Amino acid sequence: MNRLSLNQWTTRRWTVAEAIEGCVRHGIPAIGLWRAHVAAHGLEATAALVRDAGLRVSSLCRGGFFTEDGWLEDNRRAIDEAAVLGAACLVLVVGGLPRGSKDLGGARARVGEALHELAPYAASRGVWLALEPLHPMYCADRAVVSTLGQALDLAPPEVGVVVDAFHVWWDPDVEHQIRRAAGRIASFQVCDYLVPLPADVLLGRAMMGDGVIEFEPLRAAVDAAGYTGDIEVEIFNAEVWAADPDEVLVTVKERYAALIQAGPR
Amino acid sequence: MNRLSLNQWTTRRWTVAEAIEGCVRHGIPAIGLWRAHVAAHGLEATAALVRDAGLRVSSLCRGGFFTEDGWLEDNRRAIDEAAVLGAACLVLVVGGLPRGSKDLGGARARVGEALHELAPYAASRGVWLALEPLHPMYCADRAVVSTLGQALDLAPPEVGVVVDAFHVWWDPDVEHQIRRAAGRIASFQVCDYLVPLPADVLLGRAMMGDGVIEFEPLRAAVDAAGYTGDIEVEIFNAEVWAADPDEVLVTVKERYAALIQAGPR
Repeated sequence: MNRLSLNQWTTRRWTVAEAIEGCVRHGIPAIGLWRAHVAAHGLEATAALVRDAGLRVSSLCRGGFFTEDGWLEDNRRAIDEAAVLGAACLVLVVGGLPRGSKDLGGARARVGEALHELAPYAASRGVWLALEPLHPMYCADRAVVSTLGQALDLAPPEVGVVVDAFHVWWDPDVEHQIRRAAGRIASFQVCDYLVPLPADVLLGRAMMGDGVIEFEPLRAAVDAAGYTGDIEVEIFNAEVWAADPDEVLVTVKERYAALIQAGPR
Repeated sequence: MNRLSLNQWTTRRWTVAEAIEGCVRHGIPAIGLWRAHVAAHGLEATAALVRDAGLRVSSLCRGGFFTEDGWLEDNRRAIDEAAVLGAACLVLVVGGLPRGSKDLGGARARVGEALHELAPYAASRGVWLALEPLHPMYCADRAVVSTLGQALDLAPPEVGVVVDAFHVWWDPDVEHQIRRAAGRIASFQVCDYLVPLPADVLLGRAMMGDGVIEFEPLRAAVDAAGYTGDIEVEIFNAEVWAADPDEVLVTVKERYAALIQAGPR
């Protein structure tokens, strides 16, 4: 389990302190933190907790949403927070179409500009920005960056990318694009893809093994691209959230061992 | 309105005879037919109806689903029906992952094989097969062909493709792929993309103008690729289906004139 990370949204009813204790209790060596949870506990206090617990912070979620008012200040604050937490990267979800706009090309160009504007500040704080392409079904309302290839094309080379199995598994070009991403993979996230999708498509993320994704080719491609960082389990799912978080972590470890950690056949 | 086509599923409560009468009444010169509706009226009788009405059959929906038992016979029957109807093409929706399988690469390779197997029969009957890439959210359960580029790569050159705005609007590479598709665009379908998606994501297809798609770049790209065929309005939407079909056709014509027909700025 030495590369397993719990994205804390998987156990969303836990506070940041409870999630950190949960990781320690279950022998999970890393955690992906969310800004709102961190803010609720206090930034410095959270940094001290993870340090004292001996955990790595595999990511901080999240910056981005580059079309909202105050985006630059907010993203700089997120970078500052990632620096204090010692996070391996700051995940960026770029946002959808601006309200009332249908100019998808313009929105995408704006993402490239924002990344170029933000990258020097991130570099100055030693924080790796990680652009996350989201599944195309979220293109209008959540992220106009829809494929790994597009993320690599849009971002300056010092900006990394997130490979999230849920978002990229369908892409006929994904293995090629993961090879292209060698040296730029800042985060590898896993969960499964539910069929049929639930009424709220944001909650279509399932426990590994409960959906349709074959993880092995993705894991092998990420390995071959030289990624040696943490593998973060991030599940947005009403049933998982309703379950006892300790039981969820038992299942996460079982499924991770069987489906993710096993490595190439 | 000389290139407008009504895909009959847009007015699904109408029989094939009612839909043909509706097209005539509203001055719509073409219709996209569905096999089940045609079968209910009778194949030869439907062919006579559309001929007598002076309508073009812009497409027959649909063949495909290459992993189901009896797929080859069923697709040959669909080709025969398209020939009798004089349809401009037979739309192919290839199907998702076989039951219980997660082998996406294998399912995609199977599509290429099936198309190669089917193409000579279609050629012998003078029917143009039209492979339809579906939005990636349907990859597992409806069509493992998820992008226009992938469709062009998988299909033999004599097989055409469908460009459906709903399925491709998000694709950062779509304008390039439409250029690549010059000479192979067998059908251009339009409807809008609803945000948020409804609980049944199959019904996220909306009246043009009610969603987030900017049609002009797609229309311009399809024009530039030399496509001069019909432009088919295909809407799967509970509210549209609940409305009076004659009122739906009035709106279709208004929106088509304003958003699709207007052409490049």
